[in-house]
Amino acid sequence: MNIDCVAIIGLGLVGGSLARDLARLGVRVIGHDTDPATLRAAREGGVLADALAEELRGAEHADIIVVATPVQHATAVLRRIAALPTGSVRLITDVGSTKQSVVRAAGELGLGARFVGGHPLAGSHRAGWSSSRSGSFAGAPVYLCMGAEATMAAQALAHVLWQAVGAQPVVTDAGAHDERLAVTSHLPQVLSSALARVLSGAGATASELGPGGRDMTRLAGSAPGTWTGIACDNAAPLSHAIDQALAELTRFRDALRAGNAAAVRMWFEEASQWSELAAAGEAAAGEAEASGGGAKPAPG
Amino acid sequence: MNIDCVAIIGLGLVGGSLARDLARLGVRVIGHDTDPATLRAAREGGVLADALAEELRGAEHADIIVVATPVQHATAVLRRIAALPTGSVRLITDVGSTKQSVVRAAGELGLGARFVGGHPLAGSHRAGWSSSRSGSFAGAPVYLCMGAEATMAAQALAHVLWQAVGAQPVVTDAGAHDERLAVTSHLPQVLSSALARVLSGAGATASELGPGGRDMTRLAGSAPGTWTGIACDNAAPLSHAIDQALAELTRFRDALRAGNAAAVRMWFEEASQWSELAAAGEAAAGEAEASGGGAKPAPG
Repeated sequence: MNIDCVAIIGLGLVGGSLARDLARLGVRVIGHDTDPATLRAAREGGVLADALAEELRGAEHADIIVVATPVQHATAVLRRIAALPTGSVRLITDVGSTKQSVVRAAGELGLGARFVGGHPLAGSHRAGWSSSRSGSFAGAPVYLCMGAEATMAAQALAHVLWQAVGAQPVVTDAGAHDERLAVTSHLPQVLSSALARVLSGAGATASELGPGGRDMTRLAGSAPGTWTGIACDNAAPLSHAIDQALAELTRFRDALRAGNAAAVRMWFEEASQWSELAAAGEAAAGEAEASGGGAKPAPG
Repeated sequence: MNIDCVAIIGLGLVGGSLARDLARLGVRVIGHDTDPATLRAAREGGVLADALAEELRGAEHADIIVVATPVQHATAVLRRIAALPTGSVRLITDVGSTKQSVVRAAGELGLGARFVGGHPLAGSHRAGWSSSRSGSFAGAPVYLCMGAEATMAAQALAHVLWQAVGAQPVVTDAGAHDERLAVTSHLPQVLSSALARVLSGAGATASELGPGGRDMTRLAGSAPGTWTGIACDNAAPLSHAIDQALAELTRFRDALRAGNAAAVRMWFEEASQWSELAAAGEAAAGEAEASGGGAKPAPG
C-alpha cells in the first residue's frame, strides 16, 4: 500500500490542505491549479514538488490522482485524466460535496474501476490556498462513494489515503450521500446566505450582531462559485430540504401570528431537544473513540 | 454618580454575569432568583451579599434595580418593584431582548421617570447562573431604551452602569429596537431552530455536521422558555422578518428548480457581498475604536 506520489488537481482549501498533510508525511505531491500564484506559493512553500500544466501531463506518474476543484469542474478534469496514459495510477478520487454526478461521470469515462469519490467534512467559509492548512482532516468524517465496478484495491487505497491524514472513512451510497448532505450541509449554507440577504436588505451590519448572529452568518461568506456548483448539482434533494425548512418556518410564523404561545414553545422545545440529544451523542461518540482507539494504517 | 448597591432580579446568564462584574468592582450586589440553588451558589461564590425573597423587600435600598428575568416575567417583577417604597432608587433597568413592552409597562406602573431599559448584546445559547461569567459585556453594544418621561439622571446612571462593565451604550427608540432585533437577533434564533427541526426530522446527528453546520445549530440549544417569551413579545416584527426569510428561500429554491445557475450564483453572490462588507465594517470600527479610545467613566 505504498503511496509515493499523489497528484492533486486544484490547490484550494481542501486540495491545498491535503497537499500540505501529504508532503509532511513524505509523499511526493505534484499538481495543478488554474491560479499561477497558487502554484508558485505551493512550490515555494515546499509542498508541491512539481507543477502540472492544464492538460495535466505527468499526473499519470502518480499513485493517486485527487480532483479537488469545485464540483462543477470535476467532470471536465476527469475527462482530461481519461485522456492520459494512466494505466499505473491505482486510485482516482475527488473531494467534492456532491458524489452522484462525479461517480457517474467517472464510470462513463471508463475510470470507474479505479474511482472512489471522497468528501471530507472539513469545509469552511474560507477558500483558496491561503486558507489551506495542515491537520485540517484530523478527526473529520470522509464519505467514500463509488460505483459497483470499483476494485477492492482502489477502495482500500482510498481508506489508506484518508486515514493517513487523520480522517475517518465512512463508505456510503452516492445517492444517499447527496440526499443526506442536502440536509446536513447544503441547507445550513442556504439558510446562512438567506439570513445575510435579509440583513443586507435591512441595512444591518455585522456590528449589530451578537455572538449567535455571527455564528449564523459565517457560512454566508463562502465562495459563491463553489456553492453554485454544489447547489445546482444537488438541485432536487436541496430543493426538498429547503421545502422542509419553509414548512418549519411557516408553522412557527403561523403560531406566532395566532398568539399561540404553547405552540411557539413546543416548536422551540423540539429544536432544543435535538440539540441536547445531538450534543449527548457527540460526547458519547467522543468517549467511544477515546477508549476504542482503532488503529489507523499509516501510508508510505 | 456613586453606585454602592445594585439589586439584580434573576441571576441567569445575563443577570449572573452582571452580578459577577459589579461584585468585582466593589459594588454591593443583592438579588433574587426563583431557583434556591442559584441563590445559594451566588452567595457562596461571594457575588451576592444578600438574597432577597420573592416579594423583593430590601431592593428599595439599592441605587439601581436590574430586572434580569426572561422578558415574559419582567412586567410582573416591575409590579412588585412598584409596590416597594423605592423613593431612593435612582435607576430601574432591565436586560431583556425586547424593549417596547417593558418600557410601556414601567410607564404604566409610574416608574417611567427612573426606568431606562437595557439590552446588552452578549447572549448565548447557554443559560443559568452556571453559565454566567465575569467579563461578558466587554466591548458588547448595550441598547438603552426609555420613555419620554425618563430623567437625564436615570439615563446618565444607565450609561455609567453599563460602561463600568465594559459595554458600549447605544440609545435607541424601543419600537425601532424591537424591529431591528427581530432581524438581527430573533430571526437568527428562529432559523437555527428551524434547521435543528429539519435535521431532527431527517434523523441526523451532530456528528454528521461539518464546522459550518455546527455554527448554524448552536443557537437551537437556547432555552425554549426564554425564546418563547421574546418571540411572543415581538410577534409582529418577527413574523415580518420570517416572511422576508421565506421570500429569500423561495426565490432561491425556484431558481434551483428552474436550473437557473446564473440566478443561483447571483443569490449566493449578494449574500457573500454582505459578509465581506460586514467584515470590512467591523474591522474599520475596531480600528476607529483602537485609535479613538473614548474615555469610559468608572463607577464607585
